[in-house]
Amino acid sequence: MNRIDCELLDVECRLAGCRERFSLPEGVLYFDGNSLGALPRTTAASIGAAVGDEWGKGLIRSWLDAGWFHLSRRAGDAIAPLIGASEGEVAVADSTSVNIFKLAASLLRRRGGRRKAVAERGDFPTDVYILQGVVDLLGADCELALAEPGGIAEAIDGDTALVLASHVDYRTGALRDMERLTARCRALGAPIVWDLCHSAGAVPVELNRCKVDYAVGCTYKFLNGGPGAPAFVYVSGDAIGSFEPVVTGWFGHADQFRFEDRYRAADSINKLLAGSPPVLSLRAVLDGVACFDGVDMEELAAKSRRLSGLFIELADERLARHGLELASPRDPAGRGSQVSFRHPDAYAIARALIAGGLIPDFRDPDILRFGITPLYMRYVDVWDAVDAIDAAMSGGAWLDFRTDAREAVT
Amino acid sequence: MNRIDCELLDVECRLAGCRERFSLPEGVLYFDGNSLGALPRTTAASIGAAVGDEWGKGLIRSWLDAGWFHLSRRAGDAIAPLIGASEGEVAVADSTSVNIFKLAASLLRRRGGRRKAVAERGDFPTDVYILQGVVDLLGADCELALAEPGGIAEAIDGDTALVLASHVDYRTGALRDMERLTARCRALGAPIVWDLCHSAGAVPVELNRCKVDYAVGCTYKFLNGGPGAPAFVYVSGDAIGSFEPVVTGWFGHADQFRFEDRYRAADSINKLLAGSPPVLSLRAVLDGVACFDGVDMEELAAKSRRLSGLFIELADERLARHGLELASPRDPAGRGSQVSFRHPDAYAIARALIAGGLIPDFRDPDILRFGITPLYMRYVDVWDAVDAIDAAMSGGAWLDFRTDAREAVT
Repeated sequence: MNRIDCELLDVECRLAGCRERFSLPEGVLYFDGNSLGALPRTTAASIGAAVGDEWGKGLIRSWLDAGWFHLSRRAGDAIAPLIGASEGEVAVADSTSVNIFKLAASLLRRRGGRRKAVAERGDFPTDVYILQGVVDLLGADCELALAEPGGIAEAIDGDTALVLASHVDYRTGALRDMERLTARCRALGAPIVWDLCHSAGAVPVELNRCKVDYAVGCTYKFLNGGPGAPAFVYVSGDAIGSFEPVVTGWFGHADQFRFEDRYRAADSINKLLAGSPPVLSLRAVLDGVACFDGVDMEELAAKSRRLSGLFIELADERLARHGLELASPRDPAGRGSQVSFRHPDAYAIARALIAGGLIPDFRDPDILRFGITPLYMRYVDVWDAVDAIDAAMSGGAWLDFRTDAREAVT
Repeated sequence: MNRIDCELLDVECRLAGCRERFSLPEGVLYFDGNSLGALPRTTAASIGAAVGDEWGKGLIRSWLDAGWFHLSRRAGDAIAPLIGASEGEVAVADSTSVNIFKLAASLLRRRGGRRKAVAERGDFPTDVYILQGVVDLLGADCELALAEPGGIAEAIDGDTALVLASHVDYRTGALRDMERLTARCRALGAPIVWDLCHSAGAVPVELNRCKVDYAVGCTYKFLNGGPGAPAFVYVSGDAIGSFEPVVTGWFGHADQFRFEDRYRAADSINKLLAGSPPVLSLRAVLDGVACFDGVDMEELAAKSRRLSGLFIELADERLARHGLELASPRDPAGRGSQVSFRHPDAYAIARALIAGGLIPDFRDPDILRFGITPLYMRYVDVWDAVDAIDAAMSGGAWLDFRTDAREAVT
């Protein structure tokens, strides 16, 4: 395998043209699209029109005339096919954290004598933090049960009132078996909320087929919705009828502009909405998701696996000798769309690579993470990235960064 | 009083130049800036740079390099002087609804045996709805006590665990006495959350002087932050130490990127943050608030009262005969920055006026509302608005709209 082989793979790749949908800076190898997706070419013009025409000229009229009122649903319906959901099951609003709160508080409130909210130690921090906040709020007969890494399935039992699980582990990239864990939860009568932040848009997600009732996910990673873009929340058509909202804001009311004295929940996914959505950020989500137009998600996921497989193969050859220890699963079926390594100086290495134009991600304490974004990543990018890491490690460039005070890389 | 008198008032107005800070469409008389503020001239360029340069070129690096991490606080500190708060007491994040939830859930959780959450019937719907959701969540020994309109002060007693009150009534524009109601709450040991949505940026707000501990407010009305821009939340320096967050997301963690297993709240207003903020919408808030640079808030509020006073004076002369009944207080000291009228066909009249280029607001069931935005509204605008209403009512233009199915005007 050499660089020309990679160029050939790019030539043969049927998805190669999708890269043209993005505006990527020159001289940068971007491997952090799983933290913040790249800028779609259409976004600047869309946002410009939303600001100048819709807001500036249309003013308040644009809530109706420009369809701002329906953006949360429109964006949700655009995301639905990417995650195996149906029309009307997804809305885009608030942050992932707030959406987890909405689901967890509602589900734990009706816990029927069960006490445990189960998550796994090492799952994405905000998920566990939010669950901790809900449990503390609900009182003494409700507790957070943190399973040890890898042990979540065994931690679920007849006393489990809620399970919260990431589809892809943000550090290692390990992919959980959604169908199997959901089935186990169902058999034990415990609702499960799936966090799709690190899978939606790059990994096959089949919510309906896996009989998932509740999920949340992020639009600013693989979905390219822009920094801090509002998150999505999914409740299945089966579960939405009995879902009782807890964050009962006016956007979730059955008849918002009647301004009734009492809250009456909408009889749709709208009951997951709360306050006014941030229209400019929400508009950008539509452009991000539109980058998937005509893309077969299975084909996209297959490209992701090939790219990450190539990364691992090249790393075995050239990076293992530098002490970079693969932290991601070798089995492509168990791997999300990233390749992670452990190294005691992961932070310094990340800083050095970024200074050199290759952007990975650092995750405390020792994870160097390379996001694989198959919509716009080329095989030669993987080659060049490994090349750049090899050069940086060989030349000791990273040693200069070891004394840096740690601050967030992302 | 005639139009030339109004022109003279504009010439003499020391704040007249502020209108140049906004991009206002030709041929529109905009009286709904208390629903969605006008577009500042700088916003399009700021958002363009945030999209094209910061996101497009800086990519993930912009969280640090472009200061995205600090935007919530930066915007909060920019708003603080407009509402009589101090540096570090305000953050911009999430919606007003979600921020009310954060405050109400935390305060009601530690209710020390008190049972009642008090609000007033007819206060802004989402406020009451959210409170209802929190009360339902917290269980049987907690209830929502809705005072009849005008009766909130009397409804507060030793069994009151929380009070939620709008500073300005969204329908009538009546301004509550913040100092007095806050003092009463304090004397009775009941925390009060103030909703500043319809006052911040147009009415004197003196949170510190009035010894207010908790407040929320909206940035897309008088603060010109753009459609659905994230809201602000205020907790006083006195109260922040003992405040225990309930929506415990990673942005509120004491050390966010250590990715610890357990949530530890930041020891600042940051503990009110939850998830990633919508950066593009948040950026626009900075431009909106910058329109107040160098503006004396007392002078601005005085202009607001003069504009609304002029509106009422002209309405007495020319509109009362059309059956438009003033719903706003005549006493300028008790009036927020709007003038409202009641009319059985308020909806049809609003539609007709909008069709003719004058944009007011309709509020169910019979309120026709004219927002006064003293930063960019002229005295001649008030004259022209009354003229347009008089003409529309005289000519019967609104009768054609009476059969329209009601939909949201805003």
